[in-house]
Amino acid sequence: MALVTQSEIFPQLEEHLKKRGCFMVAGSDAPNFMTIVWATAGIIWGKPIMMVAVRLSRYTHDKMDALKEFTVCIPKDGTMAKELAFAGVKSGRDYDKAKELGLTYLPADKVSVPLLSDCAAAYECKVVYETEMHEAHLDAELRERYYKTGDYHTLYFGEILACHKFD
Amino acid sequence: MALVTQSEIFPQLEEHLKKRGCFMVAGSDAPNFMTIVWATAGIIWGKPIMMVAVRLSRYTHDKMDALKEFTVCIPKDGTMAKELAFAGVKSGRDYDKAKELGLTYLPADKVSVPLLSDCAAAYECKVVYETEMHEAHLDAELRERYYKTGDYHTLYFGEILACHKFD
Repeated sequence: MALVTQSEIFPQLEEHLKKRGCFMVAGSDAPNFMTIVWATAGIIWGKPIMMVAVRLSRYTHDKMDALKEFTVCIPKDGTMAKELAFAGVKSGRDYDKAKELGLTYLPADKVSVPLLSDCAAAYECKVVYETEMHEAHLDAELRERYYKTGDYHTLYFGEILACHKFD
Repeated sequence: MALVTQSEIFPQLEEHLKKRGCFMVAGSDAPNFMTIVWATAGIIWGKPIMMVAVRLSRYTHDKMDALKEFTVCIPKDGTMAKELAFAGVKSGRDYDKAKELGLTYLPADKVSVPLLSDCAAAYECKVVYETEMHEAHLDAELRERYYKTGDYHTLYFGEILACHKFD
């Protein structure tokens, strides 16, 4: 693994978010991962920051609240379609997803949450701010499309402590 | 001006945010711009999104609330140090900044807020969500550093309707 800047892997992040998604890992003793298709990256509070969104109902939400750390792992091009589909609909409450899918975890450098094996690149993040979304000031079309039943996202702002490209 | 993807100009955005900043323009009939050193970009709600932060006390906050549109303009490398410094500390309540600095506005393609002349690249955005920051869940060090007197930021999530590279 080589340390890189966030700009070096942003195009990969954006490309995969627009296609089948990336993996977000949370939890340390019993890690879990979900598929994400939303994230933003840049600079806030003078720090490199990645923002991810997790619905209140999600198992990952519990894991985030417990540890306030996460990693985002970007698949290699054209790979892991099955894994992304599985992690997008199955809950870590019901499955040990890594075991089900034959994936392994790799230790991260700066956080206790691991990285997911077989990926192309990854971000390690520590939550420095979070805010629960609400319907006020939300575009009506987005509300109708994503929040008909409520279950709003919590927006987690993670300081990016390291970015990697895998070998 | 050439239309480009957000990934093509993200490295320029990140680089300038880390140095002297970029310009954020708000308002249509009487536009104003401020210097920003914070922003994130990516995908949320299935849309390309740029998030910017504006303190409640700012003149730009009034302009954003009135129109819900903004542009972010990235300077050419090594230029506009004076303009970025001026726009970072002077208020549009007291100055017509473009006039003071001899800059002109260019019409944008998708929003009624203009772009700023003499820049290298720009984003055009329409606000689809906003949320006021608050001290709950904010890292203590950041609270101490940026919000001693309150005056929290409103986080504006703008759908990126166009990205440009200037000729």
